[in-house]
Amino acid sequence: MNIKIKEEARKMKLDAPKLAATAPEQRNRALEMIADALQSHASEIFEANHQDMEAAKASGVAAAVCKRLKFDEGKLRDVLGGIRQLISLPDPLGKVQLERELDEGLKLYRISCPIGVIGIIFEARPDALVQISTLCLKSGNCAILKGGKETVHTNRVLFRIIYESALAAGMPEGCMLQAEQHNEIDELLSCHKDVDLLIPRGSNQFVQYIMNHTKIPVMGHADGICHIYVDEKFDPEKAIPVIIDAKTQYTAACNTVETLLVNRKIAGEFLPVLADQLQAHGVKIRGTREVNGIIPCEIMEEEEFHTEYLDLILSVKLVEDVREAVEHINYYGSHHTDCILTEHQEHAEYFMQMVDSAGVYQNCSTRFADGFRYGFGAEVGISTGKIHARGPVGLEGLVTYKYRLFGQGQIVGDYASGKKKFHFRDFV
Amino acid sequence: MNIKIKEEARKMKLDAPKLAATAPEQRNRALEMIADALQSHASEIFEANHQDMEAAKASGVAAAVCKRLKFDEGKLRDVLGGIRQLISLPDPLGKVQLERELDEGLKLYRISCPIGVIGIIFEARPDALVQISTLCLKSGNCAILKGGKETVHTNRVLFRIIYESALAAGMPEGCMLQAEQHNEIDELLSCHKDVDLLIPRGSNQFVQYIMNHTKIPVMGHADGICHIYVDEKFDPEKAIPVIIDAKTQYTAACNTVETLLVNRKIAGEFLPVLADQLQAHGVKIRGTREVNGIIPCEIMEEEEFHTEYLDLILSVKLVEDVREAVEHINYYGSHHTDCILTEHQEHAEYFMQMVDSAGVYQNCSTRFADGFRYGFGAEVGISTGKIHARGPVGLEGLVTYKYRLFGQGQIVGDYASGKKKFHFRDFV
Repeated sequence: MNIKIKEEARKMKLDAPKLAATAPEQRNRALEMIADALQSHASEIFEANHQDMEAAKASGVAAAVCKRLKFDEGKLRDVLGGIRQLISLPDPLGKVQLERELDEGLKLYRISCPIGVIGIIFEARPDALVQISTLCLKSGNCAILKGGKETVHTNRVLFRIIYESALAAGMPEGCMLQAEQHNEIDELLSCHKDVDLLIPRGSNQFVQYIMNHTKIPVMGHADGICHIYVDEKFDPEKAIPVIIDAKTQYTAACNTVETLLVNRKIAGEFLPVLADQLQAHGVKIRGTREVNGIIPCEIMEEEEFHTEYLDLILSVKLVEDVREAVEHINYYGSHHTDCILTEHQEHAEYFMQMVDSAGVYQNCSTRFADGFRYGFGAEVGISTGKIHARGPVGLEGLVTYKYRLFGQGQIVGDYASGKKKFHFRDFV
Repeated sequence: MNIKIKEEARKMKLDAPKLAATAPEQRNRALEMIADALQSHASEIFEANHQDMEAAKASGVAAAVCKRLKFDEGKLRDVLGGIRQLISLPDPLGKVQLERELDEGLKLYRISCPIGVIGIIFEARPDALVQISTLCLKSGNCAILKGGKETVHTNRVLFRIIYESALAAGMPEGCMLQAEQHNEIDELLSCHKDVDLLIPRGSNQFVQYIMNHTKIPVMGHADGICHIYVDEKFDPEKAIPVIIDAKTQYTAACNTVETLLVNRKIAGEFLPVLADQLQAHGVKIRGTREVNGIIPCEIMEEEEFHTEYLDLILSVKLVEDVREAVEHINYYGSHHTDCILTEHQEHAEYFMQMVDSAGVYQNCSTRFADGFRYGFGAEVGISTGKIHARGPVGLEGLVTYKYRLFGQGQIVGDYASGKKKFHFRDFV
């Protein structure tokens, strides 16, 4: 079914204030109905997913990818748990962020409200559709959802169940829309008059394509080049498990470490021990000539430190001190998540102040950069941009605010002429 | 002097964490030194401005524009007052927005920090250079400033005084940069790797050009199509002065009203009275055929309601009720600032909830949409976008945040396997 995204987006934009005006109880009720309906339609969902899995196997999709396509009892339990957590979170809308009397009888409020219409293009994980659509609903945002074609049958069933439940709970018709055709992505990119924000999730090239072909603000990240710096004052008991976890716990994730910077003073002792552990976990080491003088590794050039492997490969370089580590990270990094392994509090403070990234860590795995692990309930993505939201983006990243000014006939002319004066009294 | 913007932006990006790490006292000290230096160099500034004014007159620049180019005792007093207000405002950096223990010994903080490098392209008002550069300094942001060519001499002197004072107060070399050549704008637009945000101020066409030719996030507005809706339950004592002020107090401003929507039930009585007043203030009325049946006016077509006049012209249309007014505004408006004139609290509530604009007003002039009038000290611009900042943008709109996570060797594998569990305890 080919829908006219442009026309639909226009309608959604005009419907968006209706969704924004719904009561929090009503939005939570919709989430409850969605959870119930997903549960009662479980067999239908699994059947559709079976169809997608068969098609994937038939077309030779790798087993690792197939694992992500799967939507079974376990995944259903997870998404239902996510929805229940979302219901329990406080309403992000209608919060009074500022209450200021500008002058007698002239009162300004800044109140949180939804962004409006959000377009989300996500990879081939059907559970992402449930997470993203329910996050948007809770935050009062209309959502245009485009999932991966590998799970088209699962997505279609999931969307129908979610959308019908939302309507039954009184949400406006334009609250969500599913796009299924690949060519609809380009149409969506041209809807800058009606779509307020795009959140693409996928490969570096895909996100770059989106960023280069739209005037709509884009939130997310292309690269995830995360670093770990092993300081001279490090604790090897912590360092080795953290490095192994950050590299191997889920290789394809954006928060996986790609580059290890090691303080020159401790490299001779530390690197051989680490190399054994990395080898035992199947990680290939690439390093500078200097690193190659200490442990066997493939030699790499300086400009290759821009590389995101998303694979069992690690770049290694020696640095003089925390200052040089910070310089390297700010120059070659992607401003995602970077970690220092140190027991030296001043070095940690310097690192966390000076590294220009969404996440700066001391003594823990970069893999913690995630909405669930930060306690946000869920995330729509991780932003390496610095505008609006940074790092994992949950409910708070999906709201903006508006200024409400209540007067009694005040005009600016009286303040310009000096007849009246502002007195600015804050209440919130 | 032609500078290599790209190289300079790269250097600034790497210097930005140094500026971000300065203490608030140090940034305030820099502001004090800037205020002192502007005062002691007053005659030099006035002389440079005299040169610009002579050149403007010689090339036939309109008197109204010349007024904006002028930088005299009064303007100096204003900008010095602005700097003093800025010094007195609390530091926007280093605020703990979230403090959460994810698990024993694993603590997450969200802390406000500067955006980084901001490019600001502003119109021909030398006082804007002082306001913008001091706002950026207070918020710890590096600024690339490009002012209008009409005040090139004034800007050069002002920039030199400000920059030298900033350096003398210990700010890093890359804290600010002045671009003077028009071709440097295009170079600036291509610096998406190093410039975090662009704030263009100028004509609709100019802002559109910027938005269409860069991958850098742009904050600001192209159109300012503001509306006033006169409800059936309006108070004429308030309505007429507010409409006249909103249209005539400063015609060229973005927050000037362009379209008046009048409830059909009160149009027959109200419009003739209003028309007399508008005429007395030199305002030309354009209206629908229906309006023309009540008062003499130039007839306009529906699609012309997208027009921003920035002149003594007002579009007028009749609507059935507050619902139709909201629909018109959300369809034809630019999401800037819109006002309802009513004594009916429910109508006001409906309007303020449903109009999708940065500012929604009851019974006061749209001209109040301004950083000074909101008590922000100053503004870098007004945003009609919904991402990051909306409405007048002051210090708060110039910061973002970063997540700091302090651990003791925690790895994600332990949480994925169920060996450990998050407990999420909030402190802030």
